[in-house]
Amino acid sequence: MAFQGKKLINNPNDVVTEFIEGLVETYQGLQYLDGFPEVKVVLRAEVSGATYDKVAVISGGGSGHEPAQAGYVGEGLLTASICGDVFASPTVDSILAGIRAVTGPMGCLLVVTNYTGDRLNFGLAAEQARSEGYKIETVIVGDDCALPKSQGIAGRRGLAGTILVNKVAGAVAAAGLSLADVASEARRASEVVGTMGVALSVCTLPGQVTSDRLGPGKMELGLGIHGEPGAAVADLQPVDVVVTHVLKQILESNYIPITRGNRVVLMINGLGATPVMELMIAAGKTVPKLQLEFGLLVERVYTGSFMTSLDMKGFSISIMKVDQTLLQHLDASTKAPHWPVDSAGNRPPAKIPVPLPSSRSMKSDELLSRPLQLTEQGHILEVAIEAAANAIINMRDILNDWDSTVGDGDCGSTMYKGATAILDDMKK
Amino acid sequence: MAFQGKKLINNPNDVVTEFIEGLVETYQGLQYLDGFPEVKVVLRAEVSGATYDKVAVISGGGSGHEPAQAGYVGEGLLTASICGDVFASPTVDSILAGIRAVTGPMGCLLVVTNYTGDRLNFGLAAEQARSEGYKIETVIVGDDCALPKSQGIAGRRGLAGTILVNKVAGAVAAAGLSLADVASEARRASEVVGTMGVALSVCTLPGQVTSDRLGPGKMELGLGIHGEPGAAVADLQPVDVVVTHVLKQILESNYIPITRGNRVVLMINGLGATPVMELMIAAGKTVPKLQLEFGLLVERVYTGSFMTSLDMKGFSISIMKVDQTLLQHLDASTKAPHWPVDSAGNRPPAKIPVPLPSSRSMKSDELLSRPLQLTEQGHILEVAIEAAANAIINMRDILNDWDSTVGDGDCGSTMYKGATAILDDMKK
Repeated sequence: MAFQGKKLINNPNDVVTEFIEGLVETYQGLQYLDGFPEVKVVLRAEVSGATYDKVAVISGGGSGHEPAQAGYVGEGLLTASICGDVFASPTVDSILAGIRAVTGPMGCLLVVTNYTGDRLNFGLAAEQARSEGYKIETVIVGDDCALPKSQGIAGRRGLAGTILVNKVAGAVAAAGLSLADVASEARRASEVVGTMGVALSVCTLPGQVTSDRLGPGKMELGLGIHGEPGAAVADLQPVDVVVTHVLKQILESNYIPITRGNRVVLMINGLGATPVMELMIAAGKTVPKLQLEFGLLVERVYTGSFMTSLDMKGFSISIMKVDQTLLQHLDASTKAPHWPVDSAGNRPPAKIPVPLPSSRSMKSDELLSRPLQLTEQGHILEVAIEAAANAIINMRDILNDWDSTVGDGDCGSTMYKGATAILDDMKK
Repeated sequence: MAFQGKKLINNPNDVVTEFIEGLVETYQGLQYLDGFPEVKVVLRAEVSGATYDKVAVISGGGSGHEPAQAGYVGEGLLTASICGDVFASPTVDSILAGIRAVTGPMGCLLVVTNYTGDRLNFGLAAEQARSEGYKIETVIVGDDCALPKSQGIAGRRGLAGTILVNKVAGAVAAAGLSLADVASEARRASEVVGTMGVALSVCTLPGQVTSDRLGPGKMELGLGIHGEPGAAVADLQPVDVVVTHVLKQILESNYIPITRGNRVVLMINGLGATPVMELMIAAGKTVPKLQLEFGLLVERVYTGSFMTSLDMKGFSISIMKVDQTLLQHLDASTKAPHWPVDSAGNRPPAKIPVPLPSSRSMKSDELLSRPLQLTEQGHILEVAIEAAANAIINMRDILNDWDSTVGDGDCGSTMYKGATAILDDMKK
């Protein structure tokens, strides 16, 4: 069943420029270059290439991955982001415009995802910028761990790990280091991060029909962020099982040099249509697995929708091996609006005891327990309560059905839970 | 067609406790009370009721609206959040545990959304806490503008405007003011905020079937955040039209006392499965409409998924009338992880000119224009280019089809755009 994908947009051809306009209305520290539709560049409002005394860090690529990369423009992270059309590399002219707008005498690092179009266009722009006298370095990120080393032809794709590489580059640049230092730390970071995703639906391009590649009850593993088919389609499993499978793929792929006892950071990245609830559940399950099953020290957890695929439902997991230096770069403060808040620093104990009431009127357990011998009336009451509870239990489906026409359709399930709890309590 | 909703979860009964575990793994400033599954309370790690010297601000309600409210716990916003089961009010015991954990001699403000269960349970907990000697105030938020005043029975529902009210309360409390002051500013904020939503799909509760209430090509206006049916179902429109309709509903409903020339803040709130791209497009279109059509001064724009409805696709718009004091409360710094970064302060110009190349080799427009007279060879070349472009244009669908089996299915559309641009250029 294919049908037009439902989106809250205007003309599908205008989604990127209209996204940029909204982004800049939202965040006070951002501006864009007045060159729509050809030039789509978001940059830090206070930076001008003529006077900028730090290394500029520029990333970008096809759009459809919001907030990546434009949402990471800000002090301490990207200096500018170059936005292509949806899933299409930005033009050389657009990249050049971005370089000229923010690059000062310290030079510019281009962080490029490993796709043919991006490598070609960022590479050409770098050449031309050098011919204009700019100092330019390039770092390529390919963090995909979905396919075994032997199967890659175009090489590993750049996925959500790119955000972590950009953060490292941005922190080193903000500290005032040279272009060579910024590039070498970014390159080092790119070599120790691995990513793999799972999706419950593929994305729909603006104005196009929704694909039915994944049927009901199916999930796809190791797919690309442009809807490229993945390594395998399987029956949907509990997220516990999914997480274990993905972690094994990443950590046993030999792509990243991680061994027991290593320190890592974790990124759980929503692909566009995944609720925060599900991302947090995945994060909560991944941390103990990394610790207990793989013997790793999880230093930081970044959970959110960082690099999406339009409206794809699912998430990717990225693991980066860190040392103290990389961790400091990740922890360094930034004003980029979409870098997560409150992820740096040491973790307090997760839970603390429930406080006891200050009042003296606390009921003891004894008062709430069942008497050894029921009176006749007590017996009648017990039978009546059991009958009522059982009646409610039997009405679960019909109550859900009625509730779904006026509310959220869970009235029967809620009553069922309550009635079951009452029956359980009576047995105690 | 009803089918089991696809979610990346484990047991549907555990989604809230597993969400909290992941949340606390992600954010270093948060802890939870060790009382699962009955007590589900997230609180600031460094706050203890016995010693806390500021007014505690507590909010909460049914889960399924993540990051609301647990993601707003942090210095300058909430002191604790009480999480109910999905779409079910938290129990009195759970609310009481939260109050006891964070309330010091300055007292505690409960910010409660206007639903029967929340008012009942937070109200009972407030009574019992008072009997234990705590100073408690309560503010009810009902910001829904979907139904005309005459139609409400239970009163207006609490929607995303609650986040703005909580931010005001948290800022006043952080400034060290008294419980009476915190309550009165929060109450004042609750009276000047209005919200209305639009959805393209209804939400699916964990473990339940997906509703087919909304068919292909349809949208629902003014629905509730628990999937309650809305004011109207209509054919899907461009987001420009949707925004205009929603703004009229909010601003012409007489619920909030807004007139031309007033200062306002805007919140574009994703409902769970809405990509950042679409939210930003809506934000970019809403600001000029508020300015030009309604004569309002838009001081701040908050765009993101702040108060969701599980996996619902769509957004709500909230408008709050502000004066300098309310604006300062909204701008005040906070460490709550999900309050948006970089929204405070004055806006620079949205766009700046594209920088010119420093090189002298810039091509003039003249060199790129068509000669007045074509040579014979030039004419042959022109015909060949036109034929090639037309062939590509005719292959759009088949190329898209081929590409969709290995990639993102837009190869034909991209080639079509290029070929059309070439034909257009040749006419110049």
